[in-house]
Amino acid sequence: MWGIELQRESEVPLKRQLYLALRERIVSGRMQAGEALPSTRELAGAIRVSRNTVNEAYEMLAVEGFVVNRQGAATRVAEGLVLERPPDAAAPEDDPQPASYAADFRTGQPDLRQFPRYLWQQMMNKALREMPAALLGYTGPQGLARLREEIAAYLLRSKGLSVAADHIFITAGATHALNLIADLLDEDGKPILVEDPCNRGMLQALANRGHAIRPIPVDASGLMTDRLSGLSSCAVYVTPSHQFPLGGILPAGRRAALIRYAREQNSFIVEDDYDSEFRYFGDPVAPLYAMDPERVIYVGTFSKVLFPALRIGYAIVPRRLHQRWRRLRTYSDVQNPPFEQAALAELLHTRKFDRHLAAMRKLYGERRQRLLSSLREHFGDGWRSWGDAAGLHLAVEFPDVYLTMLS
Amino acid sequence: MWGIELQRESEVPLKRQLYLALRERIVSGRMQAGEALPSTRELAGAIRVSRNTVNEAYEMLAVEGFVVNRQGAATRVAEGLVLERPPDAAAPEDDPQPASYAADFRTGQPDLRQFPRYLWQQMMNKALREMPAALLGYTGPQGLARLREEIAAYLLRSKGLSVAADHIFITAGATHALNLIADLLDEDGKPILVEDPCNRGMLQALANRGHAIRPIPVDASGLMTDRLSGLSSCAVYVTPSHQFPLGGILPAGRRAALIRYAREQNSFIVEDDYDSEFRYFGDPVAPLYAMDPERVIYVGTFSKVLFPALRIGYAIVPRRLHQRWRRLRTYSDVQNPPFEQAALAELLHTRKFDRHLAAMRKLYGERRQRLLSSLREHFGDGWRSWGDAAGLHLAVEFPDVYLTMLS
Repeated sequence: MWGIELQRESEVPLKRQLYLALRERIVSGRMQAGEALPSTRELAGAIRVSRNTVNEAYEMLAVEGFVVNRQGAATRVAEGLVLERPPDAAAPEDDPQPASYAADFRTGQPDLRQFPRYLWQQMMNKALREMPAALLGYTGPQGLARLREEIAAYLLRSKGLSVAADHIFITAGATHALNLIADLLDEDGKPILVEDPCNRGMLQALANRGHAIRPIPVDASGLMTDRLSGLSSCAVYVTPSHQFPLGGILPAGRRAALIRYAREQNSFIVEDDYDSEFRYFGDPVAPLYAMDPERVIYVGTFSKVLFPALRIGYAIVPRRLHQRWRRLRTYSDVQNPPFEQAALAELLHTRKFDRHLAAMRKLYGERRQRLLSSLREHFGDGWRSWGDAAGLHLAVEFPDVYLTMLS
Repeated sequence: MWGIELQRESEVPLKRQLYLALRERIVSGRMQAGEALPSTRELAGAIRVSRNTVNEAYEMLAVEGFVVNRQGAATRVAEGLVLERPPDAAAPEDDPQPASYAADFRTGQPDLRQFPRYLWQQMMNKALREMPAALLGYTGPQGLARLREEIAAYLLRSKGLSVAADHIFITAGATHALNLIADLLDEDGKPILVEDPCNRGMLQALANRGHAIRPIPVDASGLMTDRLSGLSSCAVYVTPSHQFPLGGILPAGRRAALIRYAREQNSFIVEDDYDSEFRYFGDPVAPLYAMDPERVIYVGTFSKVLFPALRIGYAIVPRRLHQRWRRLRTYSDVQNPPFEQAALAELLHTRKFDRHLAAMRKLYGERRQRLLSSLREHFGDGWRSWGDAAGLHLAVEFPDVYLTMLS
């Protein structure tokens, strides 16, 4: 009867299969408004299910208004339910497949095989065992207090940066932090000034949030601060510890000039410290943040020391932005999950983070040397490398050819 | 000499303490441009550290441009570094402390003590052990394929909804999904139509993304679709399975009318299915999505069945939005972390999710009954409850008093 075929092996319960079959007939117009459904006894016999199954399917249709039950009368199809078939979906617009290369020179990718998986498993286990139940609920947009305290301690011991945990806001990575910052900046049409060249992803993130972008040229020492004079802006995006991609360290004179500029223009400075942990000779460069904590928003990440999919970063935020930041995060993606935050706090607390970082710094430093000697071997003197010996990429200039980047 | 006091117990290395002390003197103007630093031997003797420590501190200052080294000459303070002290930071604007209550009637909060912590630990452990290294890197904005397949299977067995894993996009929860959707909608100034009343957080999320909002009234059956006629919009936000807060199930006739409206106006329907898993009598209500997969964006969440801090939700997205969605997510918060996704996939795959859900449905159903009998006991007949017996809240009307909500 009705051509209804139920699949008895399916995970979908029979009553729901029957409901779906009837609903399809109603919406397509094959069963018309006012038409009576067969009695439950009749239909149950015809398709060999229990009357209870039919009853339950009818009940589902009634609850959702596809049929109308009236005491003592037959169940009938409700009015006004027929829908035209939707037009056929457009052909799939799939993203083009990435090309494949003999050697992958993408920048900023840590070696994932080096990730201390067993160690991370231990930290996560401890977090899973010990997390108080209250922290499984909504715990606020700023991030776990313990992680913020451990980050503050780490910044002090590794970079000499003294900052209160109250000013640290956990994010889902550095790109996410930049999005939140871009959303916080006043929308009075003033542009964001960015280093030229800079990281394409970061540029896209800022532009996506609707801000006008104005490029400021970069030389071997980073942002050319003498080009700022007189420009109005809501923020300046810089990578002062290791300019991306050219590798310069912004010198103290330009740092001071940049801060004077931001004060004059009532603009913020967004300091993206994306990889300065990996400095192969000498000590980590000091963050610009320390020079004016009410003017500089510092963005840090753990993607490169641990693994990119971790999705934990942080921003150090001037006090007058705190409340707006909390409100924005609450209504955008709410907060970070708690277990990774607790595991990372433990990794920092036990200093196992510092040890892993030291090992990675050694490894990447050796690879950088290997890359440099291999360049010498193959290209003799026909090239020069730019910037400070730091980070996960190397900018190389072949003067007669072009400027390229190798990771 | 110089009043420099180093703290020998500190975790901050002596060379960095010395660097910070000298830098502070330069930036504050107490050491002036052109002034020579003492010789390393002299300073080392005066503050009782090794010459090497002083050398390293000088090197840090030189790398960052605070001092200038010239072959054979004394190290001197660089030009143009003095900064005025920043004006004192504004007084803290702390958020007001939440008031405390004898009973907490907040809506939408699962009972976190019921969370199967040991089970989740097992699933996370498996994920931590077995995750391929490649998935620790950037794995794309759509979410783990395995989780998307398990969600598709779950939607089929629990709600009879047939959807390909390709159309499912993992998000950091439902609020996050709404943010992404709001950002995807064309910004030609057409408003988003929302149910009135609706969830305040969702309203805030949509408004924060710059959309005009237009309220459409709700009655006991949900959105009053007869009020839509002639209104232009970019989207309609609805909770058809269990209207928030009044609890109505949108009847089939209104569902058809809503879809006809969206087709006419070339508008999207955003279906927020925030808690329909918890239906205490009868079967889950079928999603509106099935009636027009090219017009409806379905938003689902795991916050209420598992725990809010998990931050995993999903959207089922019409094909013509896929590419824009991927691009937007890549440049906003990139992707979800992988381990929770894998653990949730395993929880769904083993059906332990379904069993936990069934147990919670029973528990919350009993609590709902207890709340209703307690209302009868204390208020007699002077009230009525609204809506379907579902979800984690109950809308109660005291006709002579006001409309309130109890969780």
